[in-house]
Amino acid sequence: MREVAIIGAGMTKFGRHTKRSFADLGAEACRKALDSGNVNYKEIQGAYYGTTGGVGAMHQTLRDIGILGIPISRAENGCATGSTCLREAYISIAAGIFDLVIAMGIEKMYGASMGEVTGAQTAILLDMKSTDLDAKLMSFGAISLPGIFAIMANRHCYKYGTTHEQIAQVAVKNHNNGAKNPYAQFQQQRTLEEIMDPNTPKNDMISTPLTKLQCCPITDGAASVVLASADIAKKFTDTPVYIAASAQVSSAHEFPTDDWLSFEQTRRCAKQAFQMARIEPQDINLGCVHDCFAPAEILHYEDIGWCKKGEGGKMIEEGETELNGRISVNPGGGLLARGHPLGATGIAMTAEIFWQFQNEAGKRQVDKIEYALQQNMGWPAAGLSQLIHIFKR
Amino acid sequence: MREVAIIGAGMTKFGRHTKRSFADLGAEACRKALDSGNVNYKEIQGAYYGTTGGVGAMHQTLRDIGILGIPISRAENGCATGSTCLREAYISIAAGIFDLVIAMGIEKMYGASMGEVTGAQTAILLDMKSTDLDAKLMSFGAISLPGIFAIMANRHCYKYGTTHEQIAQVAVKNHNNGAKNPYAQFQQQRTLEEIMDPNTPKNDMISTPLTKLQCCPITDGAASVVLASADIAKKFTDTPVYIAASAQVSSAHEFPTDDWLSFEQTRRCAKQAFQMARIEPQDINLGCVHDCFAPAEILHYEDIGWCKKGEGGKMIEEGETELNGRISVNPGGGLLARGHPLGATGIAMTAEIFWQFQNEAGKRQVDKIEYALQQNMGWPAAGLSQLIHIFKR
Repeated sequence: MREVAIIGAGMTKFGRHTKRSFADLGAEACRKALDSGNVNYKEIQGAYYGTTGGVGAMHQTLRDIGILGIPISRAENGCATGSTCLREAYISIAAGIFDLVIAMGIEKMYGASMGEVTGAQTAILLDMKSTDLDAKLMSFGAISLPGIFAIMANRHCYKYGTTHEQIAQVAVKNHNNGAKNPYAQFQQQRTLEEIMDPNTPKNDMISTPLTKLQCCPITDGAASVVLASADIAKKFTDTPVYIAASAQVSSAHEFPTDDWLSFEQTRRCAKQAFQMARIEPQDINLGCVHDCFAPAEILHYEDIGWCKKGEGGKMIEEGETELNGRISVNPGGGLLARGHPLGATGIAMTAEIFWQFQNEAGKRQVDKIEYALQQNMGWPAAGLSQLIHIFKR
Repeated sequence: MREVAIIGAGMTKFGRHTKRSFADLGAEACRKALDSGNVNYKEIQGAYYGTTGGVGAMHQTLRDIGILGIPISRAENGCATGSTCLREAYISIAAGIFDLVIAMGIEKMYGASMGEVTGAQTAILLDMKSTDLDAKLMSFGAISLPGIFAIMANRHCYKYGTTHEQIAQVAVKNHNNGAKNPYAQFQQQRTLEEIMDPNTPKNDMISTPLTKLQCCPITDGAASVVLASADIAKKFTDTPVYIAASAQVSSAHEFPTDDWLSFEQTRRCAKQAFQMARIEPQDINLGCVHDCFAPAEILHYEDIGWCKKGEGGKMIEEGETELNGRISVNPGGGLLARGHPLGATGIAMTAEIFWQFQNEAGKRQVDKIEYALQQNMGWPAAGLSQLIHIFKR
């Protein structure tokens, strides 16, 4: 297998883009990625794109840029669509099929307006065409995604003494990081009180203890990265970011095992990724993890191996994952504040990591990064899928 | 890049399966593929599936079989979804990510009943979530797919003297082949008169000169193949079928260039495929090509290089592509008679080729095969995509 590097990244501001087309959003992200990698569009050999709803988005985008006739593949894997797209692009270069590939994630969720549901619920409604029973049960309200994460939150509090304040602190951190990210959907600092009080303007109680500000929003947006084989990467940039590991675990279990206290898929996926990169969890300085709901981030700390089981609440409370803490987690604002345009989220994580390695992250810059990790999870295209990628200089 | 082989294949009968779930259809196809390749389900390391509508189908299928926790990726590329899935599975083994992979294509189109539209029109309606103008123009009836292929047929008649009878002869051949294939949706021999007369029972005039029997139907079904790295393939079977080439051309042009007389994407894709396999078009003994509408098959003869431009009509009239003619084309009945469950079609082509190489094709067996080719085209996920794979012993 050949080594693969990220050499450029670009994205649109995440938010509400009802008046812009898929191609318009896509072209902005792809052009920025090409420019950032000093890549002429004529050199691109293949394209991978991830979307749950924007069928045709990539070819319309490439046509607008002027790229014609290269192979285009679409990946779809629910909320992990972006990382699945990244992984397939990575594999295609590792195989030797291509040397230079563009990957793009894109979604327009406001266009498919569902009213006052959260992003993750929209995800179900957008994705759901299965006629099978278990899928129907979920989409028809037997239990909603905010409900599932609320149960996990409450189980964690019961079993380990995690507090609602610790859970809400994840949202405080990520909204404060988002306030430093010009690409974020929400760029407003939030206090613990604002996050927890359902009477805060634009807040609400969704599923106790989760207020709306602890749930990811509906988002439109696109993100793109350019990947190159390691042997040509330095032709484009002095500072390529190498993919040290790509791991995926999909499961036939729909939802959390382990008594709703953990995602066993994350644990297995992390183990595979650290083995492939030949490092330990503690070697990571920067993490972009899947904070679709605030308690998810706490579970990921534990399942990735950054702390012991049950100590995730303490980890956030003690500031270990704040910007320039022991491990800077979601410096771009995460799904909670940067937003969660399903297909774009995984690629937006990669873009954030790329910029952090380039020292281009402005007010949210992490000081010292040797290894960065992105963890993205999705449902239901492949059961519950976990994808972890590790990056290094 | 590592060499890759097909070691097993399975499919459901294609047809109307309104009372069967995605997982039920998928499990039948996958179990048959595993059995045919003497593969224990526990050995499968990764899964790729292709569908336009059956989100979640693969993990439900694998759960039913007992396969848990392996990476699952979904590919979607309109009517070329099956071949895109095959290609991504091939690339993953070529890269060295996996040694043993299951690929499945699946679709349930009757569930999404659209009344009396043809399969390809349903494809648009199922696929179409784009809010962009050019996609809308197509789906809202500015011109339908049968209309496009009718224009191409009439242009071909005008320019090259191709006759309506020659075009209809494609449907005669493929329906007669379908009558020999127990997996086919239509297993009824048809005369030229029956095909051409809109008053034949179950026939109709769709878009002159195309009657309904010259258009692919709506279909439910699943098909699966097992792929292995060449170095382990012989552990499972004495007669693996090797992938000699995998080529894809996607285009930003929505539809035929060249004055509506050709698909230039097919020509470029075929050229790439023959270069990769180091053979000439005339070395192919067996072809499964994308006969979504009868005239398409004639265009493909020319664009693949089996005859000169304009001579496709003569080629079908002279019986060169009949079963055991110079090149046996669509011995399984093609999209016209086997049916066209969008995501499953490409994998069904591979399954047919696998069985033909194993001498397991019964009454439709092709006598001597050295090289086989499958050509599958799709729209609109990646513009108009052409995928060609070449297989050898």
